[in-house]
Amino acid sequence: MGSVAFDTVETPAGRVDRCLAGAATYFSLAASYFTPVRVIAVVGEDFTEKEEAVFAARGIDTRGVERAAGKSFFWQGSYMENLNEAKTLQTDLNVFASFEPKIPEVYRDSEFLFLANIDPVLQKRVRDAFPDVKLVGGDTMNYWINDHRENLLKTLKGVDILLINDTETKLLSGIKSPVKAAYGVLELGPKALVVKHGEYGSTAFFGPKIFAGADHRPFRAPALPLAEVVDPTGAGDSFAGGFFGYIASQPELTPAVFKRAMFYGGVMGSFTVERFGTERLQHLTREEIDARFELFRELTHLD
Amino acid sequence: MGSVAFDTVETPAGRVDRCLAGAATYFSLAASYFTPVRVIAVVGEDFTEKEEAVFAARGIDTRGVERAAGKSFFWQGSYMENLNEAKTLQTDLNVFASFEPKIPEVYRDSEFLFLANIDPVLQKRVRDAFPDVKLVGGDTMNYWINDHRENLLKTLKGVDILLINDTETKLLSGIKSPVKAAYGVLELGPKALVVKHGEYGSTAFFGPKIFAGADHRPFRAPALPLAEVVDPTGAGDSFAGGFFGYIASQPELTPAVFKRAMFYGGVMGSFTVERFGTERLQHLTREEIDARFELFRELTHLD
Repeated sequence: MGSVAFDTVETPAGRVDRCLAGAATYFSLAASYFTPVRVIAVVGEDFTEKEEAVFAARGIDTRGVERAAGKSFFWQGSYMENLNEAKTLQTDLNVFASFEPKIPEVYRDSEFLFLANIDPVLQKRVRDAFPDVKLVGGDTMNYWINDHRENLLKTLKGVDILLINDTETKLLSGIKSPVKAAYGVLELGPKALVVKHGEYGSTAFFGPKIFAGADHRPFRAPALPLAEVVDPTGAGDSFAGGFFGYIASQPELTPAVFKRAMFYGGVMGSFTVERFGTERLQHLTREEIDARFELFRELTHLD
Repeated sequence: MGSVAFDTVETPAGRVDRCLAGAATYFSLAASYFTPVRVIAVVGEDFTEKEEAVFAARGIDTRGVERAAGKSFFWQGSYMENLNEAKTLQTDLNVFASFEPKIPEVYRDSEFLFLANIDPVLQKRVRDAFPDVKLVGGDTMNYWINDHRENLLKTLKGVDILLINDTETKLLSGIKSPVKAAYGVLELGPKALVVKHGEYGSTAFFGPKIFAGADHRPFRAPALPLAEVVDPTGAGDSFAGGFFGYIASQPELTPAVFKRAMFYGGVMGSFTVERFGTERLQHLTREEIDARFELFRELTHLD
């Protein structure tokens, strides 16, 4: 569940106008290489057969994508000054402003639920609609942490694995030390936290309840050193899609599966930033993905 | 070759006055757990038997440490605002201002030379005094890159492995993209570059001449997620000491040795920051070091 949107993005590599984007789009496409995916979102009348075909080509179920009167969520951003952080030039919520997630009956047997970055009130509503799900992943951002903290804290009680970045981890916990901040977040509900470090990869921190009797030491996964980042938009959502999609494809969540999932998250993020928008995510093969997984292994493993 | 100094340091964990420090001190202590070490430096009359004993206890040869009239190099810094970057409050070069490195004859058969951060003119002079050395490592900093670039570029022609941080890599190459910047630095002379990322570890980039016919893809080593960093001073120099000391202890520089050396660099840096000054580095055992090496492996390896 999350946003399906159109983005206009400017980076040192060029510019793209109104390309298909949104957290749920990046997430779904990335996850679709590992497991069947169902989306809950809302779009406007500008979402045409052309966009629908992008989801259909990857076998993604869009029966939970509501078609509303008006325009889809629109975001315009620039990375001209800093490739690591977007400068938002325009945000038009449009149909998203009055989004009331509607969950198709056929979705009810889903075993894995990912709550992409969106109003924590909506995240909680969807979470509560899937009481028997095996695992819940979630994302959030500074805005919700700062201005909607009470609602977010309620939502976090129902999230098993939270994926946020360094700054968000410190903000959410109110602790400056990165490691103490991570363990502070784990006291708010999540059983595991994946802290995303952008070009430096990610670190997972585990609470006592995530694995039965296994080791709980942190784990670090790399990001690929890329000579050119064309468009960083969606890297985090693609990470989440690769990460959660891989977990959903496995019979059980073990430490080994969690670690491999972080590598697959990094892999999907590294593909996304190689082109504008979702272009690179639309036409991958599992062979390309696994070849890059091996690059990640080579990048980090001693032997 | 580098500085032996006294530091006064303030961090959120406390304060220490005039503790034994300096790049060559951290480097030597860290390297001494892997290989015999000889130091070239200058100290003043405030360097007493007590400080000498710290080197002696680790079997470090200090015959190249000149005793000059006056006071030793002194630095005062604060990490109160930012644990990742020191704010310099005072720098007294003292005897270092007129340092002319003197190389004892008994040092002449050294096979490995590390040029710690210091005036590149002095680095080159010492480099040229060891024409037959097997491998030369080096460090530098913003000040030399910005204000002594011509001298630094001459020195870099004689450095095989350069260890600098992200900002320095971009400054030195004049390139913003981290990966392109790294390869830009490799065009200036070094056969390999280790870019230090602080709490995120380090990445090595290899030129074509560093290994005979081996793979040259980048390698990433982690830093340990530490709940408390007491004093970050010397982490980079300790990294260099562990890294270069380990390489010197091995019969040949292979890709496998280089990668393990980066892990040992991270290990020694992680010990240093656990206490003020060189305290933690003075009383380690190889068993403690190798146990932590295994933590680094566990932190990054899938299986």
